[in-house]
Amino acid sequence: MRNLDEDNITRAVIGMHADAANPRLREIMTGLVQHLHAFARDVALTEDEWFEGIRFLTEVGHITNGTRQEFILLSDTLGLSMLVTALNNKKPKGCTEATVFGPFHVEDSPRVELGGDVANGAPGEPCYVRGTVVGLDGRPVPNAELQVWQADEAGFYDVQYGDGAPQRARATLQADEQGGFHFKTIRAEAYPIPHDGPVGRLLEALGRHPWRPAHLHFMITAPGYERLITHVFRNGDRYLDSDAVFGVRSSLIADWIEHPPGPAPDGSRSEVPFYTLDFRFVLNPAPAA
Amino acid sequence: MRNLDEDNITRAVIGMHADAANPRLREIMTGLVQHLHAFARDVALTEDEWFEGIRFLTEVGHITNGTRQEFILLSDTLGLSMLVTALNNKKPKGCTEATVFGPFHVEDSPRVELGGDVANGAPGEPCYVRGTVVGLDGRPVPNAELQVWQADEAGFYDVQYGDGAPQRARATLQADEQGGFHFKTIRAEAYPIPHDGPVGRLLEALGRHPWRPAHLHFMITAPGYERLITHVFRNGDRYLDSDAVFGVRSSLIADWIEHPPGPAPDGSRSEVPFYTLDFRFVLNPAPAA
Repeated sequence: MRNLDEDNITRAVIGMHADAANPRLREIMTGLVQHLHAFARDVALTEDEWFEGIRFLTEVGHITNGTRQEFILLSDTLGLSMLVTALNNKKPKGCTEATVFGPFHVEDSPRVELGGDVANGAPGEPCYVRGTVVGLDGRPVPNAELQVWQADEAGFYDVQYGDGAPQRARATLQADEQGGFHFKTIRAEAYPIPHDGPVGRLLEALGRHPWRPAHLHFMITAPGYERLITHVFRNGDRYLDSDAVFGVRSSLIADWIEHPPGPAPDGSRSEVPFYTLDFRFVLNPAPAA
Repeated sequence: MRNLDEDNITRAVIGMHADAANPRLREIMTGLVQHLHAFARDVALTEDEWFEGIRFLTEVGHITNGTRQEFILLSDTLGLSMLVTALNNKKPKGCTEATVFGPFHVEDSPRVELGGDVANGAPGEPCYVRGTVVGLDGRPVPNAELQVWQADEAGFYDVQYGDGAPQRARATLQADEQGGFHFKTIRAEAYPIPHDGPVGRLLEALGRHPWRPAHLHFMITAPGYERLITHVFRNGDRYLDSDAVFGVRSSLIADWIEHPPGPAPDGSRSEVPFYTLDFRFVLNPAPAA
């Protein structure tokens, strides 16, 4: 423990964790120390660069608050979030694929009845969403709970409008006995992730754009099935091949079909063009308890 | 860029950085992404563990302020700081070794004349420090600037007493023409790094103590020489072989010699026991411009 050099310090640090009560914590910290040290050695990190890293993380910490999660943005834009999603969601073929959670989910979003209005005043072109939730065997999953959330046509989620802004374009719904659900909302639009902070400046320095292709978030839970966290992406979006957070799966791309003004799916008459989206979610049965 | 899986996502993320204007930034981020991803794969990081990591970093960010730098504590306790110090301070044999910078340095500490009082009221047993600054060839380095800082007998640096607390036990001095310096201060004491935050809780979970052996910090600069950032450690300290930040070098351990009440090195008479410390710093010549 004296005179540690660049070669033996890694072993010394790991040795200090031998008494950790939780073996999984010890395993994780061993891997973290090994890779963190290997990174510094591989790139021959200078002291100024180390300090720049400290300063960057400090900025990320200071801009993070109850409604802005810059560490998740950092993880998302470095592909770590999607990697963790891929590692933990190896579902059988035929199941709906998972994708990144993102930083904009909110617990306890407003309950909306089937057929109700999720937008709640969020600006955007009207869109009627309908779909079904089934199991891998194709049989309906009754009464699944669906949480949905999305950006408005300005590219912002409700939480980005600041403290006290009303919850909009997010809701919790319950599918019916046959696994069916439908609701009214606004058309999902492509948007840049928040890029006025340290992560945005990093992306710019890396020559990267901050845009995500248009998508609608879903979190679906039902007893006896694995929780599904995913998006549905809008076909034709220009950012489908350069998603800033690496989350696109071909199987999650769907058509938002445009309709001229006229009779809408909810029986009303739309005076403006509107869109419809139809999607079938296939849940993976949970492992037997 | 669609359907990235746990194997090909790393290459895809790195590919996005091909247009970075700064090749060094590209190199660093390439190494970071590779090791970050390898870490997640190696330990098979779960989604809950990933989120616990996000939460931990958020806490580290929120406790960090102008006088508390929890990210540096994290880097220090994971051995990253000492590794970066070792990578960047490969000095010729005979030079004083560098060690970790730590989170408690302050720019513009009070100027103190040679022989003056650095403690400025900080509690502790009196200690008289004297030494010389020489080059690798053994010749005096005239007029080097020395910044010194240390904890008091309660184990706290001045900045830990909160905003507006006076600067104590830290100073900037200038050595004389012959490289000599001397000042009065208090005896350095072992202390725990701040452990009431997320880093302290992590250490506890890892079965580690937060203590550092007693030491006095020095930053020494002189034209024509590499800047030296180091400590002098107190011989006999019980934590010399388990420094929480891995910074001990045998060559930096010195004797704090105890003296009974009586005549002190500054010509005064001490009514209490006091200590003396003598240390010779050997600077590495800067590379020719």
